[in-house]
Amino acid sequence: MLKKYISPAICGILSGLLAATLSFADFGGSSAPGTASASDAINAQASYVPFGQKDSYYLFASGGHSGQLYVYGIPSMRKIRTIPVFSPDTASGYGFDDKTKKMLGGYTWGDLHHPAFSETNGEYNGKYVFASDVANNRIAVVDLKTFTTEDILQTPNTVGPHCAAFVTQNSEYVFLPTRFSAPVGQQYAPLDDFDSKYKGVMSAIQFNEQTKKLELAYQVALPPWSYDLSDAGKKESGDWAVLTTYNTEEATTNLEISASQKDRDYIVLFNWKELAQDVKEGKYDMVDGVKMIDPAKLQSGIYLVPVAKSPHGVDVSPDGKYFIASGKLAPAMTVFSFAKAFDAIKNQKFTGKDHGIPVLDYNSVMEREVNPENALGPLHTMFDDQGNAYTAMFISSEIVKWNIATGETLDRIPVQYAPGHLATAEGDSVSPDGKWLVSLNKLSKDNFLSVGPSHPETLQLIDLSGSKMKLVQTVPSDPEPHYAQIIKADKIKNPINVYPKDPNNQDAVWDTNSPHIERHGNEVDVYGVALRSKFIMDAKSKRPDLIQVKQGDKVVIHLTNIDLDEDITHGFGINNYDINMEVQPGETKTVTFIADKPGTFPFYCTNFCSALHQEMSGYLLVEPKS
Amino acid sequence: MLKKYISPAICGILSGLLAATLSFADFGGSSAPGTASASDAINAQASYVPFGQKDSYYLFASGGHSGQLYVYGIPSMRKIRTIPVFSPDTASGYGFDDKTKKMLGGYTWGDLHHPAFSETNGEYNGKYVFASDVANNRIAVVDLKTFTTEDILQTPNTVGPHCAAFVTQNSEYVFLPTRFSAPVGQQYAPLDDFDSKYKGVMSAIQFNEQTKKLELAYQVALPPWSYDLSDAGKKESGDWAVLTTYNTEEATTNLEISASQKDRDYIVLFNWKELAQDVKEGKYDMVDGVKMIDPAKLQSGIYLVPVAKSPHGVDVSPDGKYFIASGKLAPAMTVFSFAKAFDAIKNQKFTGKDHGIPVLDYNSVMEREVNPENALGPLHTMFDDQGNAYTAMFISSEIVKWNIATGETLDRIPVQYAPGHLATAEGDSVSPDGKWLVSLNKLSKDNFLSVGPSHPETLQLIDLSGSKMKLVQTVPSDPEPHYAQIIKADKIKNPINVYPKDPNNQDAVWDTNSPHIERHGNEVDVYGVALRSKFIMDAKSKRPDLIQVKQGDKVVIHLTNIDLDEDITHGFGINNYDINMEVQPGETKTVTFIADKPGTFPFYCTNFCSALHQEMSGYLLVEPKS
Repeated sequence: MLKKYISPAICGILSGLLAATLSFADFGGSSAPGTASASDAINAQASYVPFGQKDSYYLFASGGHSGQLYVYGIPSMRKIRTIPVFSPDTASGYGFDDKTKKMLGGYTWGDLHHPAFSETNGEYNGKYVFASDVANNRIAVVDLKTFTTEDILQTPNTVGPHCAAFVTQNSEYVFLPTRFSAPVGQQYAPLDDFDSKYKGVMSAIQFNEQTKKLELAYQVALPPWSYDLSDAGKKESGDWAVLTTYNTEEATTNLEISASQKDRDYIVLFNWKELAQDVKEGKYDMVDGVKMIDPAKLQSGIYLVPVAKSPHGVDVSPDGKYFIASGKLAPAMTVFSFAKAFDAIKNQKFTGKDHGIPVLDYNSVMEREVNPENALGPLHTMFDDQGNAYTAMFISSEIVKWNIATGETLDRIPVQYAPGHLATAEGDSVSPDGKWLVSLNKLSKDNFLSVGPSHPETLQLIDLSGSKMKLVQTVPSDPEPHYAQIIKADKIKNPINVYPKDPNNQDAVWDTNSPHIERHGNEVDVYGVALRSKFIMDAKSKRPDLIQVKQGDKVVIHLTNIDLDEDITHGFGINNYDINMEVQPGETKTVTFIADKPGTFPFYCTNFCSALHQEMSGYLLVEPKS
Repeated sequence: MLKKYISPAICGILSGLLAATLSFADFGGSSAPGTASASDAINAQASYVPFGQKDSYYLFASGGHSGQLYVYGIPSMRKIRTIPVFSPDTASGYGFDDKTKKMLGGYTWGDLHHPAFSETNGEYNGKYVFASDVANNRIAVVDLKTFTTEDILQTPNTVGPHCAAFVTQNSEYVFLPTRFSAPVGQQYAPLDDFDSKYKGVMSAIQFNEQTKKLELAYQVALPPWSYDLSDAGKKESGDWAVLTTYNTEEATTNLEISASQKDRDYIVLFNWKELAQDVKEGKYDMVDGVKMIDPAKLQSGIYLVPVAKSPHGVDVSPDGKYFIASGKLAPAMTVFSFAKAFDAIKNQKFTGKDHGIPVLDYNSVMEREVNPENALGPLHTMFDDQGNAYTAMFISSEIVKWNIATGETLDRIPVQYAPGHLATAEGDSVSPDGKWLVSLNKLSKDNFLSVGPSHPETLQLIDLSGSKMKLVQTVPSDPEPHYAQIIKADKIKNPINVYPKDPNNQDAVWDTNSPHIERHGNEVDVYGVALRSKFIMDAKSKRPDLIQVKQGDKVVIHLTNIDLDEDITHGFGINNYDINMEVQPGETKTVTFIADKPGTFPFYCTNFCSALHQEMSGYLLVEPKS
């Protein structure tokens, strides 16, 4: 039934060829340099947001191996902010003060993949963003009141949660399936023991809105395959979720060829409500302190659906009726029907089991194979409000618009170049907006002024409002967006501009008379304030901006920004002592260090705050031991 | 002669007031949300660069306490790239591989201030950018062939080189005066000994184009003041340079008030050719291995020019005839004449000495005081090709255009909000282009969609081509631009896109048969390659992408990207081992670590490189000791 398979035998060769011959379609709409065509003028206006106006959508893009989350405005495509998540950020001092340093857990980088908004009834609710870290097996939650990372949890056993995060339709769970199989606990085991000792562990995470903490609810020991992308069901499929797999060959080397041997891999289809019930009923093993479900021991709840080899994305249509796999190595999108799947499960239309998990009959679940002519490398599919799907074609460098109900190709537009993911306005929700699509292109080649060997990625804004897609704006991006979500600006309700003054915060002082320094043995506790345009560390001292300690002292500096005005940020850096943080209006931060280096070290406000910012400084004097 | 002085007695109060009442002028040119006025349509086109065209200028902006350098295109105002300089950068792996880690010297952050292009005959020559680190006393050079940091030098004794970098007109020297005074060697000394033991040490740096290394030529032990900004002379003043000072009061605490007591601070005027000759003649002391000039011992070469209190910027006009101080606390720009200064020096028009340095008579050097009505907080002045100056007004949030020859105010434009520096096209060179001005605004307030308490800074592009300045584009910026320079795109000649294959690089292997792993005792040396879409670490192994070591081994991985095609970057991350780097096409990098944690750790390509990128992975297996 699956047409146009790439023969497994030539796959390795072919893939090298494909990589080498990415076809870069010409973009014909542009005028000669220095001139402006009529269409350029229209496009210029379409993305121009004049001063005094604001963008109508936020785009939250993953920052990949930057470890961070990027916030853009649409349609201007201006990047507004980097939210530091998994890596230290010297600009904001994230990972330098005690709280965020602890949250990072000693890791100096992360690899942030697919961001996912919290949802209510399948709609983005504008409260939180979740994202996973492929590098160091973490999940984070960003609070959209403050646009800061609220909590990070490291998940044992799940090794490289690329296939995440995806959120169920009322944010009951955030699932983190693994990309890399490994022994439980990442214990040492030779690769010859892959089949017996390696597992592909999925973590089920819950976010507690009261405590603002992420919690590991349970895990599922899936077979030792690689899990790539995922989506949660919606509406009638709301209790279900789907994951793509590759390397069901269980190859342990040279995956480029050896993980592309079989004609079919699987989509894992599971009912998360059933799994929750299983956990409740004790149907799990305790493994290293974690509740671990073995799918082979369950009678139901987890199923395998055969799919064209090595799919990348799997996406659930807004109505919750279909899940659509993007082929990667098979140049087709496959539309599967949840209703058919439920029926097949009910009627036990299984073709066998794999690792003890029932395999559904492909033809009983498949609704339609969609194969736009010459379109190569489908990776990811998103949706509009008119029943259409948009698929990013990595190899043929284009976006294909097609109708979900008929499979008909409606339009194609070249993008520059090699799109991985794409995002449409609220396109992951039960009610996409249409209007805008952003293509997240991996390559820029010669799109922009050269900046040497390291090229930016490219984001392209495409107008979906007409029957034909229209490229409106092209911007470079910091590395490296893997997926983004787009939310209506007014859905993020009232982010705060100033932290509310907390009179109960024991680390804070709130006026210019209260700053003081306490000495307890070898520990020096500083309770200071920052305000335009000075630091007061000890209000009663002859020099209120002097911190005097002895070599070897443990120094704990609590600093409160008592300028409670919007946008009056203060920074705190100690020269040549590698200490750095920022305090936002109303915020208190603590930094602890050992004063092991004797000498004279000025400290200063690092964030230009007033006309007398340059004068906002003081001294840390570290008296030598002997 | 200086009008409208702020009384020292009320300065502290006033400065608080000024900070609290930044006057935000309305920008009246914008239409109602959702509509586009005719002027909006024109502005939209003015900054729109359609796909297929490129920007005409590069803007290099400091990244402040991000530690990095940002590259933008003008007129699109799209940020093309972050060049990591003083802080680690997880996105590019800068600070993670052995070479860049060593270059960072163990520091986890920096505070990059004023970037400066290398020059030939006072013109930007498009070869290098220099920049200083206020946080950890460093100077860096970025090579514009590769847009990467080529070398970093830490300067002893110069403590917070804010007043830098500035480059002489043929790049003979890069000077780094200090912002903070401290004892030599940053030794411990009580602040009561400030006058006797603290110094304001300026470093004279040379860049050796052959070795590509920065070298410390000599230092000057200036008085214990703060040095703020600086510029090198041009043409007739080409052998000279100027620095602003503040805190000539030598206050040691609460500088906001105590460093604003005197009506006048100084501009330091020095002849760097004379200093070089002095060094040649042995007129220096050796201090901790550094040639240190004591200005009080010299007969000539360094002079002080009185200036309205606490100036920020000092800028030399394109013709080299004038140096212009921006008042900060005095609401005026003061134009000084080099010719008059040379004459005053020749005729010994000194009013005395300060710390042994001759003080020139103010009236003998001053050419003109320029005081635009109600303009407050002048910080920095730049130039066009028509004999005009443009000054950023921090407090009144505007740019004032005025004529250097007459002092006449020609135009004013509000900016949003609180500009620190501004940049004009080639505005620091002997031949500015006019055309464009970028205002680097410290605040954004409500310019953009809210991203919580931490606001972006704002860059505004202003068209200088008409008689009236015109705001064209407003974009948010990552923290925190302190000055930028703008260079014609074609001045940066032929940056490379691919590193040339170096057959003599002992760390590199260049084909798929040569990768191998050598074991020397407890050290494991891996000579591997990355190519689409696999790693080969040991070509002859059953599993070429396996690195097998024993717990405690020192692991040295040399990785070469043998895909010699533009924009084919590969990344290398080891899961849960905190190892991360990128290799550009043709580049070899080395990372060394101790495999102290036993277990199973997948490694993978972090940079999406091909349709089979996801398959580009392998395993690091660390066998436990016992």
